[in-house]
Amino acid sequence: MLDEEKLAGLTEDDVRRIVREELADPKRDPAGKKAAIIASKGTLDWAYPPLILATTAAASGMEAHVFFTFYGLNIIRRDFERKLKVSPIGNPAMPMPVPMPNLVTALPGMGPMATRMMKSMFAGKHVATIRELLESAQELDVHLIACQMTMDVFGYGEDDFLDGVEFGGAAAFLSQARRAHVTLFV
Amino acid sequence: MLDEEKLAGLTEDDVRRIVREELADPKRDPAGKKAAIIASKGTLDWAYPPLILATTAAASGMEAHVFFTFYGLNIIRRDFERKLKVSPIGNPAMPMPVPMPNLVTALPGMGPMATRMMKSMFAGKHVATIRELLESAQELDVHLIACQMTMDVFGYGEDDFLDGVEFGGAAAFLSQARRAHVTLFV
Amino acid sequence: MLDEEKLAGLTEDDVRRIVREELADPKRDPAGKKAAIIASKGTLDWAYPPLILATTAAASGMEAHVFFTFYGLNIIRRDFERKLKVSPIGNPAMPMPVPMPNLVTALPGMGPMATRMMKSMFAGKHVATIRELLESAQELDVHLIACQMTMDVFGYGEDDFLDGVEFGGAAAFLSQARRAHVTLFV
Repeated sequence: MLDEEKLAGLTEDDVRRIVREELADPKRDPAGKKAAIIASKGTLDWAYPPLILATTAAASGMEAHVFFTFYGLNIIRRDFERKLKVSPIGNPAMPMPVPMPNLVTALPGMGPMATRMMKSMFAGKHVATIRELLESAQELDVHLIACQMTMDVFGYGEDDFLDGVEFGGAAAFLSQARRAHVTLFV
Repeated sequence: MLDEEKLAGLTEDDVRRIVREELADPKRDPAGKKAAIIASKGTLDWAYPPLILATTAAASGMEAHVFFTFYGLNIIRRDFERKLKVSPIGNPAMPMPVPMPNLVTALPGMGPMATRMMKSMFAGKHVATIRELLESAQELDVHLIACQMTMDVFGYGEDDFLDGVEFGGAAAFLSQARRAHVTLFV
Repeated sequence: MLDEEKLAGLTEDDVRRIVREELADPKRDPAGKKAAIIASKGTLDWAYPPLILATTAAASGMEAHVFFTFYGLNIIRRDFERKLKVSPIGNPAMPMPVPMPNLVTALPGMGPMATRMMKSMFAGKHVATIRELLESAQELDVHLIACQMTMDVFGYGEDDFLDGVEFGGAAAFLSQARRAHVTLFV
């Protein structure tokens, strides 16, 4: 005997329910598995967030892309350890050992002191260094992409960057970002 | 009589049409109902955007998460009203009552003046204070999450933060962000 | 003879496969065709990223919205060419012709010099000027939206802005962003 109910197949309501179930599971929605992050700042403190977010995303199974542009190009230069400094100037939120008026923070020597202080704060808490984060990123297949336009503007060549760095423009970033839930401009 | 057309159920084209309809409606796509925002700056001016965006999102029915990291931890400290200052230094875009060369903005006293000026500009226009925005956020069930890694680095304890604040790491942020359309790094 | 297989229509597994195919194609997922960008900084250097990203997105067929708020309102004011300056202060990552201690960058005259230097670096590399990027944005139907709340706070009127600029609040931004994969806070 013919089972009309079964023959009729799925209804439109069934299909809508299934779509919602699929979308609710980030592991099934491909956009939930991709992160596209812009790293635009070139100081020691702002080098941390894009690398920590990208390596954490990659470690949890996501495909991560970091696009380094403007001052952020510093982070993936071969000489990044010399380039990345931190400035207390204009950032009254930076915790300082003693309160200092802004003019004092502008004195020569305060920049290096702030850089040393931040490095030792991170080291004392066993937070990875920028070198360790870059190595983790490469082990986890995070895509590190240098922005070609700002390379041209600043006069940088491909040889100025770490091995394994890729090169691309804003369109390359957007082609990933338009398929990703996690899109951040740091 | 058997209606073959009806029995055959939905076609693949029907299903594709339904999927597109579902995706076009942000109220049906779960990612359209979630916002995940990082607050990384610790000055008075940059405390506004994450709180305004999160409370506006929550007020329109979205689930909002704000992850406070680096200098942004200042915003949810018990003593935030004393911590949040604004600096005119290095920000030539900040509207000042009279144009000032940069050296003048570095003089002791200019930081407090800029902070007072910004507070009175916002108050004069009946914009909510940071305290009011934090209270609204909690009434609207916005999740306020302090970054554990930077708490450790800066030596902050859980007791330093407002009641109701949650604690988590980058992985906690990403587990929400990967399911959200609105993901912003402020 | 009745083809039971065909009559039974699509199975739940068929539907899940189709949903995943649809989601994998950013041109089919409406969120993959929309970008919502906040421009909050008002200096010459930070005027570039939101305009480059929005025009690149629009040129590749996406619908792009840029929401100008806080200091970012400067970018779309009629007098933007006079307003947009760049400050080397507090940004040790900014490439300078010769290394300078921070106190020197605070001297009167260094701001204008940095602004001139950046303009000529961009011009020398045939990068579009801010004027050209704004014109491209309007030709490509990028939505340029001024934040009404910060207009009120800073005392700006609608006439202070370029022709074609739209006006809205955080809710207007979020109503687009919640339907977009690309959401960035610059």
